[in-house]
Amino acid sequence: MNFKLLIQYDGTDFHGWQVQENARTIQGELERVVSLLEDAEVKVSGSGRTDAGVHAEGQVANVYLERDFTPDKLRAAINGNLCRDIRVMHAETVPDDFHARFSAKSKTYVYRVLNAPVMSPLARRFTHHETRPLDVSKMAAAAKLFIGEHDWTAFSAAQADGESRVRTITEAALESVSSERLGGRLIQFRVSADGFLRYMVRSIVGTLLEVGRAEKGADALAEAIETGNRNLAGATAPANGLTLHKVFYD
Amino acid sequence: MNFKLLIQYDGTDFHGWQVQENARTIQGELERVVSLLEDAEVKVSGSGRTDAGVHAEGQVANVYLERDFTPDKLRAAINGNLCRDIRVMHAETVPDDFHARFSAKSKTYVYRVLNAPVMSPLARRFTHHETRPLDVSKMAAAAKLFIGEHDWTAFSAAQADGESRVRTITEAALESVSSERLGGRLIQFRVSADGFLRYMVRSIVGTLLEVGRAEKGADALAEAIETGNRNLAGATAPANGLTLHKVFYD
Repeated sequence: MNFKLLIQYDGTDFHGWQVQENARTIQGELERVVSLLEDAEVKVSGSGRTDAGVHAEGQVANVYLERDFTPDKLRAAINGNLCRDIRVMHAETVPDDFHARFSAKSKTYVYRVLNAPVMSPLARRFTHHETRPLDVSKMAAAAKLFIGEHDWTAFSAAQADGESRVRTITEAALESVSSERLGGRLIQFRVSADGFLRYMVRSIVGTLLEVGRAEKGADALAEAIETGNRNLAGATAPANGLTLHKVFYD
Repeated sequence: MNFKLLIQYDGTDFHGWQVQENARTIQGELERVVSLLEDAEVKVSGSGRTDAGVHAEGQVANVYLERDFTPDKLRAAINGNLCRDIRVMHAETVPDDFHARFSAKSKTYVYRVLNAPVMSPLARRFTHHETRPLDVSKMAAAAKLFIGEHDWTAFSAAQADGESRVRTITEAALESVSSERLGGRLIQFRVSADGFLRYMVRSIVGTLLEVGRAEKGADALAEAIETGNRNLAGATAPANGLTLHKVFYD
């Protein structure tokens, strides 16, 4: 039976999604537990990797099991063997040809920034801290420039493979609310695409932060998007502000 | 100079506010750091103790220092020596007769409950998990019964001292919102009073949860409040859902 799992994690204490020897990873934890239940080595396939420190509100994975479980029992059995920073929120049976990665149509990520003199201990795990003043309206305007189909080489990790780096961003929106509780301004950047390259969201956010600090203009940003020149893009923003929000399937 | 400090902490990894030998406490951490800066042993006085695992969005403390600091420099110097789960959000100078505990007029606490089949890793540090169905409208109606001046013996830790346990609750309100992100219903109970006894909020919340699960009726609750009979009150709710929201001064 093929099971689709909806997974949340606080990525703070993980070395990312992908199995590594001698490092705690989300895939590693899930495979350890599911293999125990199945009493055989089982592979858990995710919709995609998340890097060390990145969180998920809606990661999706699938796993083929011989043993008979109702989805709720499987969910409870997995959760009972996991630490509290990772949870299967929902499990369901799906057709055999469902694959969390290859069947995915699009994804949404959220990146959170707290613009405040002091980082609130209440937000620290899921939010990047920026003390310098940010022009949020300039950032919101610049965010829209990312919508469209482009080669995103300028906004991704250097890669040697020959695969296409063309992706279509369908949503790129920046919201900001003043938070008395957190002692500053909470900025949320939401971005959706048919796929993302490695470091793509964090590189986009790093560039938007440079725009917000008036270190980069909208012109340079538009040129980076058009030309794919990595020197025109900004630094990669830290992992802890990034959360995989949702993966979409047909 | 007398400094008033506004403090936030994630209480998960602390043994409460009060200094203890061989245990990590909030007061202990603050006194360690401020004593370093002052180069002498310094006492940090809080508005009141919080128990192990309880959080604060707005704890207040005061400290007398001989050394000359601007408030912002003091805040930065303290924060630079603390772990990320505790922060001085704001510092200001106050008259010598200001005392965080004795000058406090009232306090507000918030208790958070996630009513859902699975506990979201994104909420786990600050939220109590209840899997059983809760009748939130019954809980909201029962919450109002706590407003008023009473002897709160039934809703506090057993104590041998002869001090008055009469306190006036001025606000007791329960709100609930459905959260897709957290996969359930997030319930927030907000309570304000001129003072709280030990375990008082958690005991009130434990009783409200029993009302929500239909294990206790509003009659029994009203009788517990009137008679002060501890046997009529509910169990003490876990610490991790509780946050000291604000301390009020003239």
